[in-house]
Amino acid sequence: MSDRLYHIDGELVPAAEATVSVDDRGFRYGDAAFETLRAYGGRVLEWAAHRERLAGTCDALALEHRLSGSELRTRIDETLAANDLADAYVRLSITRGVQPGKLTPRPSVEPTVVVYAKPLPRGGLEGDPVWDEPATVRSVETRRIPDAALPAGAKTHNYLNGILARAELEDGVDEALLSTVEGAVAEGATSNLFFVREGRLRTPTTDADVLPGITRETVLELAREAGIDVETGRYELADVLGADEAFLTNRTWELRPIDVLDGAELGGGPVTERLSRLYDERVEERCYR
Amino acid sequence: MSDRLYHIDGELVPAAEATVSVDDRGFRYGDAAFETLRAYGGRVLEWAAHRERLAGTCDALALEHRLSGSELRTRIDETLAANDLADAYVRLSITRGVQPGKLTPRPSVEPTVVVYAKPLPRGGLEGDPVWDEPATVRSVETRRIPDAALPAGAKTHNYLNGILARAELEDGVDEALLSTVEGAVAEGATSNLFFVREGRLRTPTTDADVLPGITRETVLELAREAGIDVETGRYELADVLGADEAFLTNRTWELRPIDVLDGAELGGGPVTERLSRLYDERVEERCYR
Repeated sequence: MSDRLYHIDGELVPAAEATVSVDDRGFRYGDAAFETLRAYGGRVLEWAAHRERLAGTCDALALEHRLSGSELRTRIDETLAANDLADAYVRLSITRGVQPGKLTPRPSVEPTVVVYAKPLPRGGLEGDPVWDEPATVRSVETRRIPDAALPAGAKTHNYLNGILARAELEDGVDEALLSTVEGAVAEGATSNLFFVREGRLRTPTTDADVLPGITRETVLELAREAGIDVETGRYELADVLGADEAFLTNRTWELRPIDVLDGAELGGGPVTERLSRLYDERVEERCYR
Repeated sequence: MSDRLYHIDGELVPAAEATVSVDDRGFRYGDAAFETLRAYGGRVLEWAAHRERLAGTCDALALEHRLSGSELRTRIDETLAANDLADAYVRLSITRGVQPGKLTPRPSVEPTVVVYAKPLPRGGLEGDPVWDEPATVRSVETRRIPDAALPAGAKTHNYLNGILARAELEDGVDEALLSTVEGAVAEGATSNLFFVREGRLRTPTTDADVLPGITRETVLELAREAGIDVETGRYELADVLGADEAFLTNRTWELRPIDVLDGAELGGGPVTERLSRLYDERVEERCYR
């Protein structure tokens, strides 16, 4: 048991009390929305983007929790302060809570709100990545759940798809690359994919069963600002295997070069390095100054 | 709060103590297997079939919990006895528990095991159905998650697909009928579908993204024993809309006739009634004698 404090339904509690009822729909059905955030120097990076994606997830689930963005932000800040954390991983979850009956959700929701944080190294220009090495990646058999079955833009506690993808990996492989049911490259279990080919930065379109990662969006923005040629589209695995550079993005990893994909050596390169630098500068400006 | 007792990790506890850690993978990711069972006169119907499907789910999730079938059965029996229940709904869940790290599951599992029970009316020949009326059903836009993304035979805490299907329904509609991504009729959010056409009993094949319901299997067995012509296959919605009889099955409902599907009047009929009678006889023989 850790001695970290968790923020549960508005109260800071020790780990042993950080629990939910087994009748909570978050436990029973994974009926919950969440966000993974990162705080640098005590400030959450791009909170507004997280707040909006969370609202989008809750809309997709018809989960009306009635908590304001500032209320949620306050709970995150309180969690960081109570744990004396400035550089941290933060997870915020909102479940549909306990309701009478079974599967069919009721409109009136008493949500369960859980926030917790864990220490991370400093980020920004003077920081270190959280990963030790560039990623070893393998494409897996498990297919990404299609948008028609679960909205691709929703970040929910239904995460078995990614778990099954990761469970296919041998030891030493860091990330599973999932394709759509139709066979297009989609994303990693917890990351978005980028690659550089013919001088152009490419990433699978969110029109095709891909989570709109906030770090993905930031990288696209930084690339466009820097005048890097950018394309979102539908790609085959062979397109990625023939790339000059490739990297993964998520909130915690930031940009993580792909060393090897399915045995093919890819690696970072000048575009990846330039974008990593621009990302660090943004973090430095927004959070540490 | 109810004053029912829950069976959590081997102990009977009141509802207020029936909790799991927010770090439990069952809460965080829906990383858990479950079964819905029904006890009649204190005896669980077809325990062996539930035990085997649960083992199949745990295999699909690579969740090695090391609890024997008799250990699980004992916990169910203790839960029924402690709550003084003979006729009951029972839910048994096994989660991957708390593990270090994030998404990637570890082979060594300290599972969380949750059992609870709720009263139901008597079943069998002298019993009453748990439902008041035949079902009103509507086909929904939400598509059934394909087997390639989550194994169709696995019953897990990732149940948002069914919740989103149910959330599409207007008040007074009892069940959502989901189709596969390819457009074949699959199943209800919590039930399997049967229909009778040209004197033949038909149900979607489990080769096509359909949960192998235990009640479904029992009904198929009873039909074959009774010499009823039976077919499992791939059907369009139009095939069902033109049926002479239609019904849903699940553990709790048993056989529930479909009154109306998408506005078309279907209803039960001689085949449905005969199978319901045979089902009641089986329950009577196996559990009440």
